Amino acid sequence: MRNFNEKTITDAVIQRFSSSTDPRIKEVCTSLVKHLHDFVRDIRPSYEEWEYAIDFLTRTGKICDGNRQEFILLSDTLGVSMLVDAVNNPTEGPVTQSTVLGPFFVEDAEEFALGANIAGGMKGLPAYVSGSVSSEDGSPIAGAAIDVWHSDDAGFYDVQQLETLGGNAGRGRFYSDENGKFHFWTIKPTCYPVPTDGPVGEMLTAQGRHPWRPAHLHYMIQAPGHRKLVTHIFDRADQYLDSDAVFGVKDELVRDYVDQSAGVAPDGTKRDAPYCTITYEFVMAKKAARAA
Amino acid sequence: MRNFNEKTITDAVIQRFSSSTDPRIKEVCTSLVKHLHDFVRDIRPSYEEWEYAIDFLTRTGKICDGNRQEFILLSDTLGVSMLVDAVNNPTEGPVTQSTVLGPFFVEDAEEFALGANIAGGMKGLPAYVSGSVSSEDGSPIAGAAIDVWHSDDAGFYDVQQLETLGGNAGRGRFYSDENGKFHFWTIKPTCYPVPTDGPVGEMLTAQGRHPWRPAHLHYMIQAPGHRKLVTHIFDRADQYLDSDAVFGVKDELVRDYVDQSAGVAPDGTKRDAPYCTITYEFVMAKKAARAA
Repeated sequence: MRNFNEKTITDAVIQRFSSSTDPRIKEVCTSLVKHLHDFVRDIRPSYEEWEYAIDFLTRTGKICDGNRQEFILLSDTLGVSMLVDAVNNPTEGPVTQSTVLGPFFVEDAEEFALGANIAGGMKGLPAYVSGSVSSEDGSPIAGAAIDVWHSDDAGFYDVQQLETLGGNAGRGRFYSDENGKFHFWTIKPTCYPVPTDGPVGEMLTAQGRHPWRPAHLHYMIQAPGHRKLVTHIFDRADQYLDSDAVFGVKDELVRDYVDQSAGVAPDGTKRDAPYCTITYEFVMAKKAARAA
Repeated sequence: MRNFNEKTITDAVIQRFSSSTDPRIKEVCTSLVKHLHDFVRDIRPSYEEWEYAIDFLTRTGKICDGNRQEFILLSDTLGVSMLVDAVNNPTEGPVTQSTVLGPFFVEDAEEFALGANIAGGMKGLPAYVSGSVSSEDGSPIAGAAIDVWHSDDAGFYDVQQLETLGGNAGRGRFYSDENGKFHFWTIKPTCYPVPTDGPVGEMLTAQGRHPWRPAHLHYMIQAPGHRKLVTHIFDRADQYLDSDAVFGVKDELVRDYVDQSAGVAPDGTKRDAPYCTITYEFVMAKKAARAA
């Protein structure tokens, strides 16, 4: 119970969890301590390195606010978010592949009617985005809640430039129609670096990595009886598809933006300038039926 | 470069460090990703558990300020601080054993002359604290900088009650005299719970653990040519010596507070009420000589 050395301390800590009444807490904390202590024994940090780690984590917490989540970004850039995604989602079958949530999701985004333009003050090539939501059995899902958010043509999200934009932009919630279809207007997003002015940027520099993510539209789709789907649709023309800073690219999620000339758009509106179109057919997994 | 699954993502992340020019960064980050990913594969967290972890870490950062370091407390209570201590310090030989720094150290504490009373506004049994500082070869170290800090008789540090105390108390820096000796007055500290009003308290409750630390005096001693010594002197009468919330107790660091009647104290001052005495002979490790 005293005089622990680097070999005996791990069991001593784990033994302290013996009074926990929650088996999952006990399981998670036991595994955490084993792996964390193995890591420390492996790298044998100096005090200065330990102090740096404490300071790094503290600064990572401090920089978080309602519009920025640096710990999610840390999880993303260390591949943890995609690993959590992988252990929670099947990689085969008809269901649309998932990918990271990312740090720029905002709860309770503004709702729009289908066909609305969510570009707000964002500049860029107009894009007509459409798609459908169906269940894994092939039936269309009406009324699915579709959250969409994306960067502008300079790679910034609305929450990174709220003062300039005067509010949210490139972000909104739609509901699929009676046939499971949806469409809206916005601008074509571009690739962008994850924020590098915080601890994660410091880490990427030290690791000799670039901070870029390939251009994508974020989607979060929710429908009764189905598992929440969090994913992106990537631009096939992007140069960073094979070096995404957060390891999120899956071939199945890559699509073409098709350039279109001025004229009548698919929704019947008249466009007097070129635009582009992109579409995706989302397939949602059914939730396992609850035992009676 | 895409379509990572739970088996392939670890190597993909590690491969990104190949351009780092710092071999230690590469080594630490590679080990971190291996162990962190092993942990995730082991526990297979749900999204809700991952979100809880992100939120827990964020709150741990947010609650830190100049007087509170919750990430150090997290490191302490998971046994990581004592493990870092163990990999950095020999456990045999004449040198005084080290233990955790703890979250309540304050840089640049006020300096006092030997014999001063640092109790400030703290209540408790007066204590005459004395000791010596010598090198591992037995020679006394004059002018060693001795930082001391401790809780009051209710278990609170000054920085937890600055408004009530009106400033620092139970904290100060002394310098050993020409014979390596030191002495000062303060009050006898008591056992105390680590702060439980933050994320670490939440964790301890979930783990079914008590938050108590046995009573101790913190010491940080620094002298030219010697390794910084960070340690505690524990009270042999304490009930928590065998269940310290941060795993810091070593037998060699346990001493008696000896009760004394009113009368002439060891420094020649006249005491008109009972007090106690405690002493310790610190031995510092020499720094390895730098290669010519």
